[in-house]
Amino acid sequence: MITVHARATFSPEGPFKLTTIERRDLQPHDVLIEIKYAGICHSDIHTARGEWGPVNYPLVPGHEIAGIVTQVGSEVTKFAVGDRVGVGCMVDSCRECAHCRDGEEQYCLHGKTDTYAAIDRYGHYTQGGYSTHIVVTEDFVVRIPDGMELDVAAPLLCAGITTYSPLRHWRAAPGKKVAVVGLGGLGHMTVKLAHAMGAEVTVLSQTLKKKEDGLRLGADHYYATNDPETFKQLASSFDLIVNTVSAQIDVNAYLSLLALDGTLVNVGAPAEPMSVNAFPLILFRRSFAGSTIGGIRETQEMLDFCAEHGIAPEIEVISAKQIDEAWERVLASDVRYRFVIDISTMENE
Amino acid sequence: MITVHARATFSPEGPFKLTTIERRDLQPHDVLIEIKYAGICHSDIHTARGEWGPVNYPLVPGHEIAGIVTQVGSEVTKFAVGDRVGVGCMVDSCRECAHCRDGEEQYCLHGKTDTYAAIDRYGHYTQGGYSTHIVVTEDFVVRIPDGMELDVAAPLLCAGITTYSPLRHWRAAPGKKVAVVGLGGLGHMTVKLAHAMGAEVTVLSQTLKKKEDGLRLGADHYYATNDPETFKQLASSFDLIVNTVSAQIDVNAYLSLLALDGTLVNVGAPAEPMSVNAFPLILFRRSFAGSTIGGIRETQEMLDFCAEHGIAPEIEVISAKQIDEAWERVLASDVRYRFVIDISTMENE
Repeated sequence: MITVHARATFSPEGPFKLTTIERRDLQPHDVLIEIKYAGICHSDIHTARGEWGPVNYPLVPGHEIAGIVTQVGSEVTKFAVGDRVGVGCMVDSCRECAHCRDGEEQYCLHGKTDTYAAIDRYGHYTQGGYSTHIVVTEDFVVRIPDGMELDVAAPLLCAGITTYSPLRHWRAAPGKKVAVVGLGGLGHMTVKLAHAMGAEVTVLSQTLKKKEDGLRLGADHYYATNDPETFKQLASSFDLIVNTVSAQIDVNAYLSLLALDGTLVNVGAPAEPMSVNAFPLILFRRSFAGSTIGGIRETQEMLDFCAEHGIAPEIEVISAKQIDEAWERVLASDVRYRFVIDISTMENE
Repeated sequence: MITVHARATFSPEGPFKLTTIERRDLQPHDVLIEIKYAGICHSDIHTARGEWGPVNYPLVPGHEIAGIVTQVGSEVTKFAVGDRVGVGCMVDSCRECAHCRDGEEQYCLHGKTDTYAAIDRYGHYTQGGYSTHIVVTEDFVVRIPDGMELDVAAPLLCAGITTYSPLRHWRAAPGKKVAVVGLGGLGHMTVKLAHAMGAEVTVLSQTLKKKEDGLRLGADHYYATNDPETFKQLASSFDLIVNTVSAQIDVNAYLSLLALDGTLVNVGAPAEPMSVNAFPLILFRRSFAGSTIGGIRETQEMLDFCAEHGIAPEIEVISAKQIDEAWERVLASDVRYRFVIDISTMENE
């Protein structure tokens, strides 16, 4: 085993403490990655606090990982020492089911292996990217394009692919009207990506507080959802609404904003059930759907798309000691728009 | 105005009484239809009892209408006296919006005109098919194919198109697995149509009481939903589930039966909101959708499809005096599978 540094939470309440964890010895197809940056995702908080089910402690979250390959297994063909690489929300899957064979490992019929808080095929409990190193099979590692900095690459591995995949699946493109609910980590990526795909983009945020930001990021329109007029004015107008908010929203009100055959897709996951009326669905053959991350091939495609279009998340780089504080700010929606941990600050603590 | 006989309910509680109502004088594009048969749809009951919003009384329900053209307006080109025709759930729409121009009048942006309990473009309150005659613009009348009896044609105008349209929209076809929730008026048509389209059809009914019927109608499999094993055994297996039940169902349990990219489509409309979890949607990019009837062109296509494939609903023909009794039996799910009123019994009362 390889002993590495990490910041872990030892209970649902935290706080994070510096500790050491074990990574497996390199298998023939594994690469060892020296992590340079790890993004902070809202699901880190949901998971670590047990809101999505029980987890083991100590827990090292983090599934927005960017770093450098420092060692490769004997049969690795895709990467070499020195390569700039990323790891996202999953580190393995069965690789044999129909979905895996189709490159949709995120929907693996036997269950993908989450980057943290999961049992991998070796029987180990996975630990995430708030750590100095990680060992991952080469098939679940993506290449960070030349010219893309590692710090902005990190959030693309979750926030990027989580929003890119549904935009592609539901065909955001010129002539399509796409709305984005919430302008946080996922929301601001949705705006940038949908805009780059040529769609007409509207932000639906609680207030107009971030309106300037939204327009700067690429939105064509910006509406406050605390104004009931918004829902009248925009009735039946969107082809796709991407809901990035993991808190409860009034689903029926948002469904009423969809045009014929429109889809409201949840990429956040509220823990509580949502109340949905049949009538707004039936009235215009609308759909209420969900989507989770994307496959490995699509993740690489997303990174290349971002490099080509000069798309990067807006980030605030923090030191490893600031994780607890950053989590509190995420919960208070006080981040524009993604915290990224500079992992080099961890070993020097 | 043309005075015609009808059976109307004078309050949410009923009962039905013989009365007379006025039909408008024929406009240039109108046809006068002598109604021969009218099907009884569950939505007649919901509407008449005010469960979907307030209505005016006396109310004449009925939107599964089959009859003979007995008079045509001066500019009618599509029909002639003696033609065998049908009228479904709508008798008009704006005909100018994008959806109307696309032949999807059921999703008219200005609101289709329902066959009963709606205000039409003349300012009249529409009254439905539990009546001896109706006046309808030719554009909302369909032709009943030769060789199809009028009594079995009637239910196709709602139960037929309501299930045909989503099966086509979500591409029921060979290689696709379609499940049908509920084996009532809509459910039994879904089985017949999906089978004729070549899909592998499964009925999901509360008990196995109607299993023999289901298999005879064309289902390949039949499961009882009161058996929890059903939900384990069928997890993640269907491409499309058509929910024909307008009572509450456990939506999340049914969503879990959908394969990747599967859709659960509601064609019934429970009055109460449904509780939907994000996780089953997100887990396999599933959709929860709704669909209502179909356009006029598609309704004609459905009738022709049924004629070609020898598909007819299973009906029980009743006299006009038996409507109240029939409604009670519909509510008790005691009908196999559609009541059809023989309108000739009305004038002779």
